[in-house]
Amino acid sequence: MRIGILTAGGDCPGLNAVIRSVVHRALAGHGDEVIGFEDGFKGLLDGHYRRLDLNEVSGILARGGTILGSARLERARLREAAENCEELARRYGLDALIPIGGEGTLTAARMLADAGMPVVGVPKTIDNDISATDRTFGFDTAVTVATEAIDRLKTTAESHQRVMVVEVMGRHAGWIALESGMAGGAHGICLPERPFQVDDLVKMVEERFARGKKFAVICVAEGAHPAEGSMPYEKGEIDQYGHERFQGIGNRLAVELEHRLGKEARPVILGHVQRGGVPTAYDRVLATRFGWHAVEAAHRGEFGMMTALRGTQVTLVPLAEAVTRLKTVPEGRMHEAESVF
Amino acid sequence: MRIGILTAGGDCPGLNAVIRSVVHRALAGHGDEVIGFEDGFKGLLDGHYRRLDLNEVSGILARGGTILGSARLERARLREAAENCEELARRYGLDALIPIGGEGTLTAARMLADAGMPVVGVPKTIDNDISATDRTFGFDTAVTVATEAIDRLKTTAESHQRVMVVEVMGRHAGWIALESGMAGGAHGICLPERPFQVDDLVKMVEERFARGKKFAVICVAEGAHPAEGSMPYEKGEIDQYGHERFQGIGNRLAVELEHRLGKEARPVILGHVQRGGVPTAYDRVLATRFGWHAVEAAHRGEFGMMTALRGTQVTLVPLAEAVTRLKTVPEGRMHEAESVF
Amino acid sequence: MRIGILTAGGDCPGLNAVIRSVVHRALAGHGDEVIGFEDGFKGLLDGHYRRLDLNEVSGILARGGTILGSARLERARLREAAENCEELARRYGLDALIPIGGEGTLTAARMLADAGMPVVGVPKTIDNDISATDRTFGFDTAVTVATEAIDRLKTTAESHQRVMVVEVMGRHAGWIALESGMAGGAHGICLPERPFQVDDLVKMVEERFARGKKFAVICVAEGAHPAEGSMPYEKGEIDQYGHERFQGIGNRLAVELEHRLGKEARPVILGHVQRGGVPTAYDRVLATRFGWHAVEAAHRGEFGMMTALRGTQVTLVPLAEAVTRLKTVPEGRMHEAESVF
Amino acid sequence: MRIGILTAGGDCPGLNAVIRSVVHRALAGHGDEVIGFEDGFKGLLDGHYRRLDLNEVSGILARGGTILGSARLERARLREAAENCEELARRYGLDALIPIGGEGTLTAARMLADAGMPVVGVPKTIDNDISATDRTFGFDTAVTVATEAIDRLKTTAESHQRVMVVEVMGRHAGWIALESGMAGGAHGICLPERPFQVDDLVKMVEERFARGKKFAVICVAEGAHPAEGSMPYEKGEIDQYGHERFQGIGNRLAVELEHRLGKEARPVILGHVQRGGVPTAYDRVLATRFGWHAVEAAHRGEFGMMTALRGTQVTLVPLAEAVTRLKTVPEGRMHEAESVF
Repeated sequence: MRIGILTAGGDCPGLNAVIRSVVHRALAGHGDEVIGFEDGFKGLLDGHYRRLDLNEVSGILARGGTILGSARLERARLREAAENCEELARRYGLDALIPIGGEGTLTAARMLADAGMPVVGVPKTIDNDISATDRTFGFDTAVTVATEAIDRLKTTAESHQRVMVVEVMGRHAGWIALESGMAGGAHGICLPERPFQVDDLVKMVEERFARGKKFAVICVAEGAHPAEGSMPYEKGEIDQYGHERFQGIGNRLAVELEHRLGKEARPVILGHVQRGGVPTAYDRVLATRFGWHAVEAAHRGEFGMMTALRGTQVTLVPLAEAVTRLKTVPEGRMHEAESVF
Repeated sequence: MRIGILTAGGDCPGLNAVIRSVVHRALAGHGDEVIGFEDGFKGLLDGHYRRLDLNEVSGILARGGTILGSARLERARLREAAENCEELARRYGLDALIPIGGEGTLTAARMLADAGMPVVGVPKTIDNDISATDRTFGFDTAVTVATEAIDRLKTTAESHQRVMVVEVMGRHAGWIALESGMAGGAHGICLPERPFQVDDLVKMVEERFARGKKFAVICVAEGAHPAEGSMPYEKGEIDQYGHERFQGIGNRLAVELEHRLGKEARPVILGHVQRGGVPTAYDRVLATRFGWHAVEAAHRGEFGMMTALRGTQVTLVPLAEAVTRLKTVPEGRMHEAESVF
Repeated sequence: MRIGILTAGGDCPGLNAVIRSVVHRALAGHGDEVIGFEDGFKGLLDGHYRRLDLNEVSGILARGGTILGSARLERARLREAAENCEELARRYGLDALIPIGGEGTLTAARMLADAGMPVVGVPKTIDNDISATDRTFGFDTAVTVATEAIDRLKTTAESHQRVMVVEVMGRHAGWIALESGMAGGAHGICLPERPFQVDDLVKMVEERFARGKKFAVICVAEGAHPAEGSMPYEKGEIDQYGHERFQGIGNRLAVELEHRLGKEARPVILGHVQRGGVPTAYDRVLATRFGWHAVEAAHRGEFGMMTALRGTQVTLVPLAEAVTRLKTVPEGRMHEAESVF
Repeated sequence: MRIGILTAGGDCPGLNAVIRSVVHRALAGHGDEVIGFEDGFKGLLDGHYRRLDLNEVSGILARGGTILGSARLERARLREAAENCEELARRYGLDALIPIGGEGTLTAARMLADAGMPVVGVPKTIDNDISATDRTFGFDTAVTVATEAIDRLKTTAESHQRVMVVEVMGRHAGWIALESGMAGGAHGICLPERPFQVDDLVKMVEERFARGKKFAVICVAEGAHPAEGSMPYEKGEIDQYGHERFQGIGNRLAVELEHRLGKEARPVILGHVQRGGVPTAYDRVLATRFGWHAVEAAHRGEFGMMTALRGTQVTLVPLAEAVTRLKTVPEGRMHEAESVF
């Protein structure tokens, strides 16, 4: 068999672990050939690829990033790919294509699959927001990095009587905020799924101070937003090139809390450190399993599918099912996190 | 409600997170009272306990060990507890008892529940070998510690052309060896579930050297054993007090491989570092959820049950079901790990 | 002997290790009594203090923050303290006072010492900018946190062909930027000690891209600034309360580089995570030694001094000497860092 | 200039950082050429080497091990090297040779230097026992790994009322035990420099238990030994191949303490994890500076020297001076560590 593989979308710890696993399983388990396309779908369209052998993937299991590179692709070129699926498969002699990526990539994968490309997708997102799988690799690493940061900030907040606002990733789903907030013992957690009342946060902090706990840590997803009327409108900022730039919610909330509480409040915006670097053991295992199962699926001819974790098993689910709706944090999980003091 | 809580058995990162979560949920969510028995069931029998308030559990979320202490209990005294269940519950005014522990503790919990104690168990084991739950807290931390060790050993093995044998915990189930071996990219993994052939390991190492990869890392569970006839009988050692002591499998296997390969092989026995210290974010979240759900179960009157992770949900399963058989590594999972080079 | 101790100024990993060491050495080595003033000099003036025994300092060696709290003090009240030194010493029965703090605290300590208080200072700053000591505790932790962040960002930068600008702490001295930049392998390092030319950075990045290294990481101290004319004037931003806020150099530089290079440049502002949490082994050892030597100095009657690391030895230097000038990064050290690609 | 470089002796985090730094400085700073000999002096004698360019050292700064490999060399072959120094230098066109290694390597380097080879040595040892330099790279990483292990073990010891004996590296000098013991807050530290009395350890543990601290952690260097008569003679063990094997001091001491105290005592032997893997930020900086200064020394023609850290400066010291005596832990440093409870 000749298997193509590519990585697309933003960075996510575990991408290299999938690539390595696919190569190991395909070469050593089946005697296949594997080619890796560079910079996502671009490499597929433009013919940039290389053969991947065991040496090529040696030592990459624990390395962040992706040895194949990744790049955004315009919609138009994706359509081009879909229209020329058969020609593309023929050009590279592909018996299977394994794209690794997030929602956008999997939607593209589905388009290609519908157009006749033998595709097995591997879901990838640090945001954990793909509904067809219990978890995605990269998420555990992001939560771990965010939790370590909260651990550090908490001791400073406590000894220096401060409010700390930590902004973590998560534009549409608050999984990272939820889990790092719980793991770090944050006293408030704000998610995109539910507009927050600044008053509630103010009250929580004041109650803490009243009972002698003169500090608080609030974990806020970048996509969280205040309930209407809960926070004054912010004015945009003009950068040195005349572009308007808006403060993120972390910065705004810290200003707001300092204003209302009359106590020092400091924002920390974790940013890209959450999505790079050495993956946790959990993410390496999950990524390795996904790679293994993607190859097996290809050999069984189960195309148009995506690997997914369900309980303790890695299974396959139709791509169609995987990308229809975002997996957001359900009420029950928010409720579990509420008794965090 | 008045809820008793105790921790029993060996150490496990996340115990304090459960205690904290129970106290938070019971006090702040329900206005309950919580008392903590010291040193496991001993404290229950001997009347050593203290009231747990929010201050008592402040700052313990990320701390290893257990603020309640833990101790082994003799079978006879357990029977004593079971026989006096009603009296014990009355003495402390207990409406619910939440014991946190491994297989032994949960078996004891079941005895007490059968004898009339209103019990909700919380499973705890770094070995991940309790069948009724997808995962137990403590396991992720153990795997993380073992993986970090393998990461470190691998670079030495590679640059100094050595075989490294890493012995990890797991007497009856090989989960830690399986997952840390996969995450660390070990070239051989030996589990208690399947006797290993030393010849297979020798062959694997020789093939690696032959294709220029002049090193290997082998991850072996402490409970793994060679297939009959696969390794010579080892003589015991006599320590300074005349007791015979047997070398663990890690030491023996390193000697054996060095002998057969004619290459340096070094054992590293990770031991207790795997079961102590700061829990990972994953384990903190799971432990916190278990504590929360144990309190809810108590309030719903669901006794004789144990918290369990199933997929993404925390549910309750009968204690009877939980302790009947050990969850060992299934063939499918071993198979997934085999294409690791 | 009766020894007073206090911590003042911003957070710094290792403060608790000094407190613990002072208590251990004083109590167990000399049979002294130790009292801890709360919230820095405020506690001394306002009479907020508690006796510190072995239990009080148990388990704090590796904990961030300070169990004594810390707070800023107005100049006026400091003068008040200096004027009432003898009365203060008498009130608490102090034979020695050990203030732990940065430049401001040590200047205050010197004032008190000049006014007759028996003071032995312990220097504390994550910035490493106190000239009389080779290193200060807290610095190694800050560099470690920043380096881990750069390690993570580098893999993303590499696989996604990006320029990453990491802003680390250091308003007047660039030690953290220098050492984390070297340790993380940053391709550009900007320090407060030397205005940087944006053109140089642009050229460096372009040369890297030209030879196939399509990414770059630039480590910039918060106090670094562009050479005059090197970067357009930035307009301030107006926040929701009408206060003008200025973008930090990290954000501005990322905007500038993206504009000039036509490539994605992303800022990451590490902020307070650098100054909190578990201290590194190095910082714990140094802090412990400083505490031990401060007690010994008190017993030898060497007041008006400060502990200092010189080579491998901890010695004492006059407070007067310690606070006269800031220790900035010398040319030689910048030169060493320049051949980082 | 044409510069040869090689790494010899046991593994040590930071070796790759030196190699990278030498290549960067030599190529980019001076336009030199650098060749790397494989497997230490063997590569020099047998002609195994390769040119090192910027790509070759890309990404290795934070990687453990050595990309050049390392191997032991017999004395006889070293003499061969010394006798043919001029011929060797001519064969490879070497203007300078930079060997990176421990005591043995530096002694060899001195022999070659005396025989006319233009040598600049770089000291390397995790044991920190080279007297001419304040610190060696690798040491900080070893201490960090050992401290993290003690941190983990302490929580288990505390909650399970145990004595833990942690054996760390250090055959002739106890630096790792000293600093990790201090940083981890070990209650007893045993060094090769001073035979220990088991009675003292027993008394310390009993006093701790008496005052309610029912646990203890003892940090013992592998080269520590009991005072004569302090511990019964141990019998050797016979392995499966008839070789006598002696238990290390960690195992023996745990047996002894359990016997005398009547309490559970558990040994943990950290072993090779201390000498491999990602170097700490401190070690990366020191290694990078050593590499930079070695190249500068070569260009200034300062041969027969070794790089050394003295205070905050990297300087050069004669190889002759560097290898005459082992740097052991002085009484003063032991004394500082004694008030650890």
